[in-house]
This record gives sequence, C-alpha cells and structure tokens, in this order.
Amino acid sequence: MSFDAALRAAQGEIQTTLTDLLAPFDGPVADAMRYATSGGKRLRGFLVLETAALFDVPRGQALRVAAAIEAVHAYSLIHDDLPCMDDDDLRRGQPTVHRKWDDATAVLAGDALQTVAFEWLASPLTHADAAIRADLVVTLARDAGAAGMVRGQALDIAAETATDPLTLERITELQRLKTGRLLEWPCRAGALLGIGDPTPLMLFAADLGLAFQIADDLLDVEGDAATMGKAVGKDASAGKATFVSLMGADAARDRALALVKSAQDALLPFGDRAATLAAVARYVVTRDR
Amino acid sequence: MSFDAALRAAQGEIQTTLTDLLAPFDGPVADAMRYATSGGKRLRGFLVLETAALFDVPRGQALRVAAAIEAVHAYSLIHDDLPCMDDDDLRRGQPTVHRKWDDATAVLAGDALQTVAFEWLASPLTHADAAIRADLVVTLARDAGAAGMVRGQALDIAAETATDPLTLERITELQRLKTGRLLEWPCRAGALLGIGDPTPLMLFAADLGLAFQIADDLLDVEGDAATMGKAVGKDASAGKATFVSLMGADAARDRALALVKSAQDALLPFGDRAATLAAVARYVVTRDR
Repeated sequence: MSFDAALRAAQGEIQTTLTDLLAPFDGPVADAMRYATSGGKRLRGFLVLETAALFDVPRGQALRVAAAIEAVHAYSLIHDDLPCMDDDDLRRGQPTVHRKWDDATAVLAGDALQTVAFEWLASPLTHADAAIRADLVVTLARDAGAAGMVRGQALDIAAETATDPLTLERITELQRLKTGRLLEWPCRAGALLGIGDPTPLMLFAADLGLAFQIADDLLDVEGDAATMGKAVGKDASAGKATFVSLMGADAARDRALALVKSAQDALLPFGDRAATLAAVARYVVTRDR
Repeated sequence: MSFDAALRAAQGEIQTTLTDLLAPFDGPVADAMRYATSGGKRLRGFLVLETAALFDVPRGQALRVAAAIEAVHAYSLIHDDLPCMDDDDLRRGQPTVHRKWDDATAVLAGDALQTVAFEWLASPLTHADAAIRADLVVTLARDAGAAGMVRGQALDIAAETATDPLTLERITELQRLKTGRLLEWPCRAGALLGIGDPTPLMLFAADLGLAFQIADDLLDVEGDAATMGKAVGKDASAGKATFVSLMGADAARDRALALVKSAQDALLPFGDRAATLAAVARYVVTRDR
C-alpha cells in the first residue's frame, strides 16, 4: 500500500474508533468533544498504528490507543485556542470550539477529552495485561503534564511577553516539550503494546518532532490560510521567535531535511518493515497543512 | 482518636503527600498547582483514608490515592472559578488561581492537576497490583468525565441561563453528577485498594453526597463570607434554584439530617470500625464552611 493510502485508511479507522467510543455521551459538551476530534491529519494516531504494527500488535488494541492520543491532542488544541491562550478563531478551516459554542463549553470539552483518553488507555478492552495499561497511563501523563506538554505551553505563553527573544537552544527545548512529547509518546506506546524495545523509536520520534515543528514554522511563513485551515503569519506579526526567524528559511529547511534523514536512520534496525514510518518522516516536512 | 483529631491528622498527612508529589515541578504553572492544592477540608482524601482503613490498606497507598482525588478536586475548582464559568474571585479566603496569576495559568494548572492525578493512580508506587491501579484510573475517569462531574458542571451552567427553573428531581440529578460522583469515588477507591465489597460504601457515599450539597445550599443562604472564604448568597441573587429555594430551609435541613441517618445506617455492616466514617456524615451537615 502507498503511504497516502495507508494514511487515509488509518484516518478512517481512527475516526470510526473515536465515533464509537464517544457515542455513549450526549449534551453540548459531548457534541463539542465529537466536533474537536473530527478531521485532522491523525499523525499521532498513525504513529501508534505504525509502530505497534512493527511488533504485530492486534489492530484493535492499537486503534484504542490511537484514539486516546488523538483525544489528548484535541484537548490540547481546544484549550490552546481559547481567548486567554492563543485566541484562535479557526482550526482545520472550521470555527474553534469556543467560537462555535462558548468558552465554558470549550474548557469542559477539553477537560473531558483528557479524562476519557485515560479511561480508554486503562480499560481492560485495550489490553489483557493491566501492567501495560498502567504503563500507558503513566507515560502519557508524564508527556502531557506539568513536566511535558503543559510546561511547553506555559513556556510558549511566557515567551510571548518576554522582553528578550528566545535563543535557538531555548526554542528547541520549548518545542520539544510543547509538540515533541506528544509525538514521541505514540511511538513509545507502540513498543509498550508490543512489549518491544522503544529505544530506536524514541530516537526516530525526537528527530521527527523537531522536523515537524520546523516545518510548522515554515508553513506559518509560506503557507496559505485557506489550505492550512487556520491563520498564518501569526508568529511573525507577533514578533515571536521561531526556527525560521532565528535560522532563516533556507537553513531551517535544510535542518528539517537533515532531521528527516536522521529519523529514518533510526529506523534501520527494523528494515523494510518500517518503510511507512520512514515515509511519515518525509511527510511531516512536505505536508501543506 | 476524636473525629476532629483524626481529620486534622489526615489533613496534615495529605498535605505532606501532595507537597512531596508536586516537588519535582517548577515554574508558574507548578506554583499554581501547589497553591490550589493547599488547604481545604480534604473531605475526599479523608474518605479514601477512612474507607481504605476498613480493609487494612497500608496508609502510604491510601495517601497517594487521597492526593490524587484532592488534585482532581482542585483542578475542578480552578476551572469552575474561571471567568467563563462561575467567575469567582475568592476560594478558601484566598484569591482564585486566575486572580492571583491569570486565566491561561489557571487553565493549564487545572489541566496538569488532572493529568498528574492519573499518573499517581497508575504508578507502581501506589499498589503492586496493576489491575487495581488500572481500575482506579477507569473508575475515576468515569466519575470525573463527560458522563460524571463534567456533565454536572455543564448542566449547572445550562441551568443558569434556562428560562424554566430546575425541578427538585433535576437538581438532585445535577448535584449527584457535579458533586456526588467525586464524593462517591473515594469510597469506591478505598474498597478497590482493599479488594473489598464497595456496595455498602457506595450507598453511604450517595447519601453523603446529597447531604453535602444540601448543606452547601444552606451555607450559601445562612453562611458568613468570612468563615466560608468565598462569596455567599450568590445562588439566591442569581435567582438560581437550589435545594433551599425549592424546599425551604427547614425542610432542606430535615432532609439533610435524614440523609445523614441513612448514610450511617449503610455503615452498619462494618460495626464500630466505621465510627469515624459515621462522624464524617454528621460533619458534612454541621460544618460552617
């Protein structure tokens, strides 16, 4: 199967899984949870599916874990878009949750998406081995919490009002926390589900995460709002330091390509079985949104 | 030990546990997490300790679970106090998190307190048996999420703008979700940790939760802002239906006392060992804050 076909198939399966898992809930908060978990690239869920496949994990197990990380990703976007945070009106070409409903519904829908993600991970339906389920919860909590993604978001907000601009070293640390940790976790989760060695996948994910963020910064400068489905040029107009503003676009592009190569090299122990994962690394720097 | 002494001792132990568990985190969001988890009655944590003691659960295990439910309670208060929710300036006599820091820090501190609570529950340090840890995560997620506490908060917000006032039946359902579920969970958690039958404790907790909420409504009418540490009379001035507005203060007080009696009856299978838990039921309707 081609990479595009594999990604499209995974997107469909992840959407079906999320729809099924969220079906029991009703009311406006549940509607907002469904809305916020619809669409998107499903990159994090796809990473779970592809890394789990390396260890012959049953697809149904991997799909529940993919749904959980997509729910956590959606929660982080809902809260990040709030007026008190990034104050964004559009996400994936649609009104953000607080614009379509209101701030209270957005806070609660984000809260409940985080909660339900942990419920799915810990559920006996995800894996027969409770120790693996508990490990999934602990590792995701570390990557998403006050020493992980939330710390990255707090550093990002602090950077916006800081008088001295970020250095390349500090922006790398910030983005590793804010974006990188939730791209690393799906790769760890695949290995956890398959009781495999996560080390090569964590090396792959670290390079992938940084390449992803550099590509995001390039898209913010060069992208098109209609294709992106969200505002572009925000960072530059806010005078915010990014990889592009610090390195220049050409050097940033070179760095992203070098990271793709390094990410792909980390997959060599898996040989041809990791061909689709290698294509993911290429995809994150060539996508147009 | 008297009830007061037992509660004070538990409050000290829970505070120490939270301080230790939160020590690794730094930055403003972590400071806000510490601030929001300081003080309070520790009623939910105390319920974990007392129900776990019925099954001879080691104190250290119960304290980690008590810290987790107090973290979830603190997260719910931080988000509930936000301007887009209840818009409260004071909590326990101190500025709310968004007043002391800002809205973004309050959103993130609440988010991270929820995350870390699940990390603590799922950690091998909490219990040797991973199935028990996974059960703690699943049950808390159900009680705190889109079919539990968050649903209660959404119904509460919807009720504020509804044109037809709540009936006694609907307010009972709302409060059972919003407040009751996080009072029931600690009682279930004690039984889970001790591999005991949760049924009598769940009956106890259901009555306790409703008595707690009726007492809260009475305090909102009759309480003193200085003692309560938060604004009083808010519900009445907002024209909001409460147990007191629907039943009258005398009938509400009678109902709360009947619920205390019923809660205590549910503890009869445990005999004298549940004397402190029985005193908790009395405490929730006689407290002055």
